Amino acid sequence: MKGMKLDPWGSSDFTDYKKLIKEFGIKPFRPLLEKINDPDKLMRREIIYGHRDYERIIEAMKNKKEFCLITGFMPSGKPHLGHKMVMEEIIWHQKKGAKIYVCIADIEAYTVRKMSRELCDSFGKEYLAYLIALGLKADKNTRLYFQSKNKNPEYHAFSKFASRKTTFNEMKDIYGELTPGKIVSSLTQVADILLPQIENGPMPTVVPVGSDQDPHIRFTRDIASRFSSEFPFILPSSTYHMFQRGLDGGKMSSSRENSYISLDESEESLKRKIMNAVTGGRETLQEQKEKGGIPEKCMIFELFKYHLIENDEKLNKIYSECKSGSRICGECKKQCFELMLSFLKKLNEKKEKCMSKIEKMMD
Amino acid sequence: MKGMKLDPWGSSDFTDYKKLIKEFGIKPFRPLLEKINDPDKLMRREIIYGHRDYERIIEAMKNKKEFCLITGFMPSGKPHLGHKMVMEEIIWHQKKGAKIYVCIADIEAYTVRKMSRELCDSFGKEYLAYLIALGLKADKNTRLYFQSKNKNPEYHAFSKFASRKTTFNEMKDIYGELTPGKIVSSLTQVADILLPQIENGPMPTVVPVGSDQDPHIRFTRDIASRFSSEFPFILPSSTYHMFQRGLDGGKMSSSRENSYISLDESEESLKRKIMNAVTGGRETLQEQKEKGGIPEKCMIFELFKYHLIENDEKLNKIYSECKSGSRICGECKKQCFELMLSFLKKLNEKKEKCMSKIEKMMD
Repeated sequence: MKGMKLDPWGSSDFTDYKKLIKEFGIKPFRPLLEKINDPDKLMRREIIYGHRDYERIIEAMKNKKEFCLITGFMPSGKPHLGHKMVMEEIIWHQKKGAKIYVCIADIEAYTVRKMSRELCDSFGKEYLAYLIALGLKADKNTRLYFQSKNKNPEYHAFSKFASRKTTFNEMKDIYGELTPGKIVSSLTQVADILLPQIENGPMPTVVPVGSDQDPHIRFTRDIASRFSSEFPFILPSSTYHMFQRGLDGGKMSSSRENSYISLDESEESLKRKIMNAVTGGRETLQEQKEKGGIPEKCMIFELFKYHLIENDEKLNKIYSECKSGSRICGECKKQCFELMLSFLKKLNEKKEKCMSKIEKMMD
Repeated sequence: MKGMKLDPWGSSDFTDYKKLIKEFGIKPFRPLLEKINDPDKLMRREIIYGHRDYERIIEAMKNKKEFCLITGFMPSGKPHLGHKMVMEEIIWHQKKGAKIYVCIADIEAYTVRKMSRELCDSFGKEYLAYLIALGLKADKNTRLYFQSKNKNPEYHAFSKFASRKTTFNEMKDIYGELTPGKIVSSLTQVADILLPQIENGPMPTVVPVGSDQDPHIRFTRDIASRFSSEFPFILPSSTYHMFQRGLDGGKMSSSRENSYISLDESEESLKRKIMNAVTGGRETLQEQKEKGGIPEKCMIFELFKYHLIENDEKLNKIYSECKSGSRICGECKKQCFELMLSFLKKLNEKKEKCMSKIEKMMD
């Protein structure tokens, strides 16, 4: 592993996705598109840009075979639009027939991010409530759990058994400087990713992640293959999505207040953030009308593309209007604000109703 | 930590118990004897030679306050007389009012000793069956469990939370060369030792161990103290017992067939082992009659002292007879064989009856 190193605990700032594809064996997602029935907008728009072994999932969807999606949320901050993107991917796969496992990574938040257990708990419930509010059905094929509260002893035991199948040097190669907390947390994630197969037997599994989580995927695939007949796993598949950029043009991060929109953003701060967002507009209105805007650089366009405009034709229309100079930033921001406000309002009404149900939905 | 190093995974060959007391802060047990009501023969005979904070346990027994004993067995081989000694200590404490936790350390056996899970399982059940056959009451104050099968998620989560409270360097100092398996296994033992307090709130806890397990005790006490108000533990107490020597004069080890007597030893091999045991006898009968034997060097006397003779006066009589030359090795071995045979016969009859109950007794 030369050159760039993926660090799931470091700051993730990998905009050069092609390099990832080249260096780490992640395959481009686009060639799969035509084989997928009714692909999600995240797929169509290449926000999901890469995968490992996703063919297996397409095969299962096509043949109506059992398959599973497992992913996790780290409860170290408020749910924001970046998380909504993954939630959308979860819900899409549920509609396509996937069993759904969603894990709140509170062991990792506690041991690696040094969060208090109380905060992990309350953030974790928020994530699950929003997920359901967005449309996830919590039926018998859905399993929502906190790492620390999972009642299946096989889950916990497996994360410990897995420690026999790796070495200190291997983990150091993958994760860089180690602590006991990182070791325990990584092995717990291995158990999370393999849990659907531990509980249901071997089945195709897809793990939607950001590129920075790929070390966990590779590590899990290596460990899984070493259990051979003891646990006959099918190597988990994965998808990789781009990171939405921050509204201020930097990285979207919950540590920089003006970079993100949280799912419970107030109307007032939503307005402020959108109105102050970095756009692809020109210096003067005159210049913009002549040269057109640059939607590729525009955070408002990114909000349309990632979240607010489902219909591709409509999105293309916005793009063309901007490019041609007929769409003006002020109006465009206002449209974005109104769509977002209406979306968040409805979402939070639903979410409030879900909160009380969360406790019993788990396990 | 200079000089000798205690290694719970290495070969344990610490006959210099005084040195342990001096270097590691283990306190001598003898001064406590007079404060203990009806002490066990292992205490009276100074086989239990050391402790940490056992005063707390004496206090609890005296004042009829809740207290607990927790210990574990590693299912990496057949139960033998060395294990029976610890079982005796468990049962004695149960009679004195202790809640009892007994753990089968199958996570450690799998990850560190590289045992198969099937073997861990079958050995583990043997240990528990013998423990009950020896007299442990499996009542509501008794909890028998396999590490990998414990159904309390708090137990597993705690072993992971604990990883935040230590560093890689600290663990290396205590345990020497580390592997992910050793890290996971040590943190699991921390959770085992603290489990009674996790489940019942703070209470005095005693952990009977051999000296080689002291690193686990010190590590657990350090971790426990770092949780402060999050988990307000009382630091666990411990007792340290001497290791019974092997019948062949070396270390008693399940890897040297002639060194130990397993609890299911056949009559034939029991006879052979006892008849071939190293004794404190002289070269000739004549010499023995003149100078007397050396019971301190005699493995047969050790069997009397550790296992077969409950009454101290009877034991002293054997000792004096040997010293004075009136007790002859052949006769003495025969007596030992008969007592042991009768003991094992009765024990195994009871144990067979217990085997079927073991499954439901757990959890």
